[in-house]
Amino acid sequence: MKTYLDCIPCFFRQALMASRIVGADEKTQKEILNRVSKLISDLSLENTPPEIGKVVYQIVNGLTGNGDPFEKFKKESNKLALKLYPGLKRKISGFEDRILAAMKLAAAGNIIDPASSVSFDINREVEELEKCFEKDFAVFDYLKFKQALKNAEYILYLGDNAGEIVFDRILIEELGKKVIYAVREKPIINDVLINDAYDCGIDKVAKVISSGSDAPGTVLSICSPEFLRIYNRAPLIISKGQGNFEALSEERKPIFFLLKAKCNVIAKDIGCDINDMILKSGLL
Amino acid sequence: MKTYLDCIPCFFRQALMASRIVGADEKTQKEILNRVSKLISDLSLENTPPEIGKVVYQIVNGLTGNGDPFEKFKKESNKLALKLYPGLKRKISGFEDRILAAMKLAAAGNIIDPASSVSFDINREVEELEKCFEKDFAVFDYLKFKQALKNAEYILYLGDNAGEIVFDRILIEELGKKVIYAVREKPIINDVLINDAYDCGIDKVAKVISSGSDAPGTVLSICSPEFLRIYNRAPLIISKGQGNFEALSEERKPIFFLLKAKCNVIAKDIGCDINDMILKSGLL
Repeated sequence: MKTYLDCIPCFFRQALMASRIVGADEKTQKEILNRVSKLISDLSLENTPPEIGKVVYQIVNGLTGNGDPFEKFKKESNKLALKLYPGLKRKISGFEDRILAAMKLAAAGNIIDPASSVSFDINREVEELEKCFEKDFAVFDYLKFKQALKNAEYILYLGDNAGEIVFDRILIEELGKKVIYAVREKPIINDVLINDAYDCGIDKVAKVISSGSDAPGTVLSICSPEFLRIYNRAPLIISKGQGNFEALSEERKPIFFLLKAKCNVIAKDIGCDINDMILKSGLL
Repeated sequence: MKTYLDCIPCFFRQALMASRIVGADEKTQKEILNRVSKLISDLSLENTPPEIGKVVYQIVNGLTGNGDPFEKFKKESNKLALKLYPGLKRKISGFEDRILAAMKLAAAGNIIDPASSVSFDINREVEELEKCFEKDFAVFDYLKFKQALKNAEYILYLGDNAGEIVFDRILIEELGKKVIYAVREKPIINDVLINDAYDCGIDKVAKVISSGSDAPGTVLSICSPEFLRIYNRAPLIISKGQGNFEALSEERKPIFFLLKAKCNVIAKDIGCDINDMILKSGLL
């Protein structure tokens, strides 16, 4: 997905939020916004939002000297989601179509994302999460997905945020296939890293690898050659979250995007409403 | 009020919205955002938001060649508010404290403002307006205001947006004092101009003057000497709306700010919640 002009105010909002999270003083916050301003002038809209997002967060990290502003938030998200795990497993076991139920959970869990909302309240998000089973997907390429799942020898699953990966784990446990689970290479917002995957037990249900990307999305141009080999051969890819959708929506691959539309730009691009749950087949 | 860093994403959002309203193509929209970026780097936060807002909208007007992007919107707002006028007059006449009821209406009417919200829906706003009588002011220096009103020979009333000036008129009709009503000098967003004041019959209840300011607020440094003479001698000033509050909140004058807090920055500055109605005495 190309970067829309509406993403520009949002880059400033995110830079300000991240610089406050690391406790930068007002002068540093302003300097961060100045650098983002410079970036915006030089910006080509042909870049995807995660490519630009990467640079925005690099500016914050560079000027504050904090390489992982969301470290505490990620640990807390993982802990919270793990606490919900047993209850959600029981809940899922009561559904006739357990894969569908687990998909709803994984999509709804995608809301654990401080970058996407002005005021983030994890308790409200958990409440929201529990309502997901009563909702339907707004875009729902499920039959196509089930067909692809049946034929696929294994799945490449592209993770998104810490915390919600526990819900990815529940989905993986229902899919009954061998899974390779890809995480980001370095800290970027609250995106999942190797240690989060281990903390949340993803290693028990999948082979965990790094994509090599340190953008908030699987930006192929910065992925490792090892990852690209796996990516190009994968018979079925589940791409989780907005960032991965933004990075890969134009790809011609056996890919299914599983996400919650968390901003107006994504909603408009997909043709759905904000907060809708999406299971969207790729261009192939 | 100084400009907060949170105002910066909002300047970009407003520039984008205004450039789309005048039908600028995407390339021009991007060029407008580039110029705003440049402005932000050079920006001192000591300037008030209306001082910066003025330059932001000048960029839009300069690059699109449209000196009054909100002309149609203003005309429609005036027309709509005038249609509501007879019903609201009847409604006000039923209250024991008619001044209080008219003040609520004038404060609530302040929501007719495309600059403050992401998606503006005038029908929803009218619905909202009709609920104002059931709500209380969150900051309510009413006794102080009534005392000042009793002693004041006349009132200087600083108008804000087109449309809502009809509700100012209803309040002026209840105040029972001579009123000088100040409007902006040149088009800026949907702020009230001389012709709006006449369209809405303000001239029937007050002496209409221009403040000389073409910022979205009464920025004293650009007001005319004639206006400043009136301003400095006024025994009671009613300052309507966010822009005038932002421009004048530090002034030591017999001033009362009447507004609805329409964004988080203003709400935080005042110490109220977003959407609260405010009647706040100045620093004097």
